[in-house]
Amino acid sequence: MKLATYKNTTRDGRLMLVSRDLKLTCPAAPVAGTMQELLDNWDELAPALQQRYQALCSGDLMGEKFNPLKCHSPLPRAYHWADGSAYVNHVELVRRARGAEVPESFWHDPLMYQGGSDDFIGPYDDIEAPDETLGIDFEAEVAVVTADVPMGTTTTQAAEQIRLVMLVNDVSLRGLIPGELAKGFGFYQSKPASSFAPVAVTPDELGGSWSDAKVHLPLFTHFNNELFGKPEAGVDMTFNFAQLIAHAARTRNLSAGTIIGSGTVSNKQGTEHGSAIVHGGVGYSCIAEVRMIETIRDGQPATAFMHDGDRVRIEMLDADGASIFGAIDQRVKIKK
Amino acid sequence: MKLATYKNTTRDGRLMLVSRDLKLTCPAAPVAGTMQELLDNWDELAPALQQRYQALCSGDLMGEKFNPLKCHSPLPRAYHWADGSAYVNHVELVRRARGAEVPESFWHDPLMYQGGSDDFIGPYDDIEAPDETLGIDFEAEVAVVTADVPMGTTTTQAAEQIRLVMLVNDVSLRGLIPGELAKGFGFYQSKPASSFAPVAVTPDELGGSWSDAKVHLPLFTHFNNELFGKPEAGVDMTFNFAQLIAHAARTRNLSAGTIIGSGTVSNKQGTEHGSAIVHGGVGYSCIAEVRMIETIRDGQPATAFMHDGDRVRIEMLDADGASIFGAIDQRVKIKK
Repeated sequence: MKLATYKNTTRDGRLMLVSRDLKLTCPAAPVAGTMQELLDNWDELAPALQQRYQALCSGDLMGEKFNPLKCHSPLPRAYHWADGSAYVNHVELVRRARGAEVPESFWHDPLMYQGGSDDFIGPYDDIEAPDETLGIDFEAEVAVVTADVPMGTTTTQAAEQIRLVMLVNDVSLRGLIPGELAKGFGFYQSKPASSFAPVAVTPDELGGSWSDAKVHLPLFTHFNNELFGKPEAGVDMTFNFAQLIAHAARTRNLSAGTIIGSGTVSNKQGTEHGSAIVHGGVGYSCIAEVRMIETIRDGQPATAFMHDGDRVRIEMLDADGASIFGAIDQRVKIKK
Repeated sequence: MKLATYKNTTRDGRLMLVSRDLKLTCPAAPVAGTMQELLDNWDELAPALQQRYQALCSGDLMGEKFNPLKCHSPLPRAYHWADGSAYVNHVELVRRARGAEVPESFWHDPLMYQGGSDDFIGPYDDIEAPDETLGIDFEAEVAVVTADVPMGTTTTQAAEQIRLVMLVNDVSLRGLIPGELAKGFGFYQSKPASSFAPVAVTPDELGGSWSDAKVHLPLFTHFNNELFGKPEAGVDMTFNFAQLIAHAARTRNLSAGTIIGSGTVSNKQGTEHGSAIVHGGVGYSCIAEVRMIETIRDGQPATAFMHDGDRVRIEMLDADGASIFGAIDQRVKIKK
């Protein structure tokens, strides 16, 4: 199934079914009015919704033209959004640039922080920030949405608890990160509202590209209309989504609708730290990585963070070049 | 107004009005079915609910006996739970015990972390933990629930955005904290499910005890039926709730129903680090502080963290000795 949430006058929007080719849509009602309602009652509601989805895709059910510009994030607000840092190459780069080693534990104990989930923004909404000097950066990631996951769930069990797959732009304010990390309490002000691609999909929609609880496809990021990165999301992902979920559930239950992120997708490409598109590599999923490479190579970064009006577009295509989730396509807007 | 949520078969429970003396209750329906529904539509719904509350308190509306054992936390799940550390004495103690100073910035830049809010437990529910050796501790705190707070809200504006006041037990797994802090991403596994006192109250219910966006009353904690702490919540609170809200909203909007915690209530009492009840002081709101004092004094801690079956009770009384919020009263249960 493919699902989206159209904005309306309510906080949770209106749940929509979207055809596999992203061309048609119809309300998920009367089966479910909102995404959270569906997730809260998945076992009960999913079979009827699946029937409705098949009818939409086959043309038996009349749909209207799907318009991603009408979309909020699939979950406009969620009860839990925890972001892992599964691509340890990304972590290694950040540390190397400041002369620090990656602790050995980082290779078997995932990093994870909890982000704001009460106020997600839509895939085409502006990235509002109070000040350009805060170091505004995008981070292109994959995320999953879970069922109810009891405390102590194993990795094997967790793999069965993945309901949906999404793309996310985990916006970061790089200038605030060093200060917050120094305080020891982790990210808070440095992580403003995230956005998600318009369409959330059940894992079966990914076919053979979904295996070992990873998505085995490149994640495309365009920055100001130029290709910036296309790393493979299935490569160099040290912890798969099942491992990330099990980590999150070690000491707590996760409620239905919990979103678990992969962290910035990053490939080593058989080099020290990957390579940019202009150098023939697969590039990067955030500006910070390029700046780290520049710092390691030249002693200082050259690429600037996002300015007012800068645009980022994040998308994933299937083997035939068709968009799976629709695109995140946002511009920075400094809030005067 | 005083409000509680009775458990029922739904995830969000049933919103109840509770009389000022905590003796009677009646459903908040037909005005509002759940606490989140009320918070989402406060301006529209609160006046009618206030009328209903007055009728319950005056006896014009027939109520049933209020039973706190039927209660979930007032918000059984929330979209945002951010906990400050406003009593810097608590932070100072923790640091002093390991020989570290408190950075000067801690006195004007609040510490804040985001906790799990998708799966709160009820005020009388067991504290389930996977293992007694993880260092299970209670933390008695005050918390507020906000209206919609736009990004960039000032402290003055934030003071007007406080809808409700609550008590919270921010359970911590002390044994997991050093490892998580060393990783730099803040608390996650070390902060299992929190619980809240049965009754949430509007600030006006606190009368003169609510001023400067602080609650000026002692917070009582009993550990295994003995008084463990009664520090004044209005004393040594370096950041009031308005300041904590403004800090949280610096780079993001806060949605209605956001919970902001005070951190562990802690008084210096004109001494180096406060004093225990047995030594004539006001005591502490968590076991960790006692262990820090012991470490500073004796080189090592003597008081153990919570064992299977241990009980903690957290309550706040008004000037006449009447319970304002009802009590949090929980036992530890190790999940086999």
